[in-house]
Amino acid sequence: MSSDFHIKREIRILGIDDSTLVNEKVMIVGAVFRGGDWMDGVLRSYITKDGLDATDVICNMIRKSRHYCQIRVVMLDGITYGGFNVVDIERLYRETGIPVIVVMRSLPDFQKIRSALEYFPDGEERWIIIERAGKIEEIAGEKERGPVYIQKKGIGLVSVEKIIRLTSIRSNIPEPLRIAHLIATGIILGESRGKA
Amino acid sequence: MSSDFHIKREIRILGIDDSTLVNEKVMIVGAVFRGGDWMDGVLRSYITKDGLDATDVICNMIRKSRHYCQIRVVMLDGITYGGFNVVDIERLYRETGIPVIVVMRSLPDFQKIRSALEYFPDGEERWIIIERAGKIEEIAGEKERGPVYIQKKGIGLVSVEKIIRLTSIRSNIPEPLRIAHLIATGIILGESRGKA
Repeated sequence: MSSDFHIKREIRILGIDDSTLVNEKVMIVGAVFRGGDWMDGVLRSYITKDGLDATDVICNMIRKSRHYCQIRVVMLDGITYGGFNVVDIERLYRETGIPVIVVMRSLPDFQKIRSALEYFPDGEERWIIIERAGKIEEIAGEKERGPVYIQKKGIGLVSVEKIIRLTSIRSNIPEPLRIAHLIATGIILGESRGKA
Repeated sequence: MSSDFHIKREIRILGIDDSTLVNEKVMIVGAVFRGGDWMDGVLRSYITKDGLDATDVICNMIRKSRHYCQIRVVMLDGITYGGFNVVDIERLYRETGIPVIVVMRSLPDFQKIRSALEYFPDGEERWIIIERAGKIEEIAGEKERGPVYIQKKGIGLVSVEKIIRLTSIRSNIPEPLRIAHLIATGIILGESRGKA
């Protein structure tokens, strides 16, 4: 069940983002952070564009990392990576034992997603994973920033709010995700661009 | 000639490191920092292992970056990248107009480098570039940290010291170099390791 826990200022967080779609294999980058301050490490793996391997790849990337036992929270930038490669956050939490926070800048357009999934033979399976990610909740922005929207597994809303505020130092996007995004786009395109 | 200038807390610095040698083309990564605090962008290029293209590649990477006009200092982790691909810091400074600071954790073994260069048909040319990088100076470490050794172009020693102290927050290596190293090794090896 969801639970709230004490949040240390240097809580280890892994933020994961994907890169631009330029090949069949899409690079994903993990930034290991201490709170919002300090990057401790970088992880890299590849998922298949529009495949269904993102959950397994992310689980493996985390479990084989030397940072595994220190990471207290995994942050995702939405749950679809590399096109429509949907991350099963319920399973990600279960298989790693690490709570998961999904952060979104805006509410997903589920009608559009549902229509797109009709083109996939396993669209129904993907839709079930999306539904299983659970309720979307709003977290108000501070300092004239816009809100963000979240989903969660293995962690309570109070803790999620604390972690989002602790780590959203430079924008309304938590640093582990902002930096993972800069790295993923910078490496693939030659120079980083855009927002997580 | 060298000159000292006022150092803002958020001075834009580009730290450049290379990745592990696994292919003929070696990835180099640039981390654009504001002081020691905050990463603004990531650049990526490739140089040839043991080639002599590092200076041109780095000049181009900088000049075509959207951060070009904001970058006040380029920091290098030594002057040999991708094996013995020597960076001509005199030319790097002249062609970009940006002062260059070379940071080293220990004094280079010039005798060993000289011997290794004998195996290169253009070894003499490389040696001249190494000599042209100028005098190596020691900067004492703070907070029980070891010293670092530096070379410089277009900037005075007082400014170099200020910038090294401003940015060496987590170790005796300035953050732009520490982070460029984490990114370069993480992307190539799957997980970052070692020190810049």
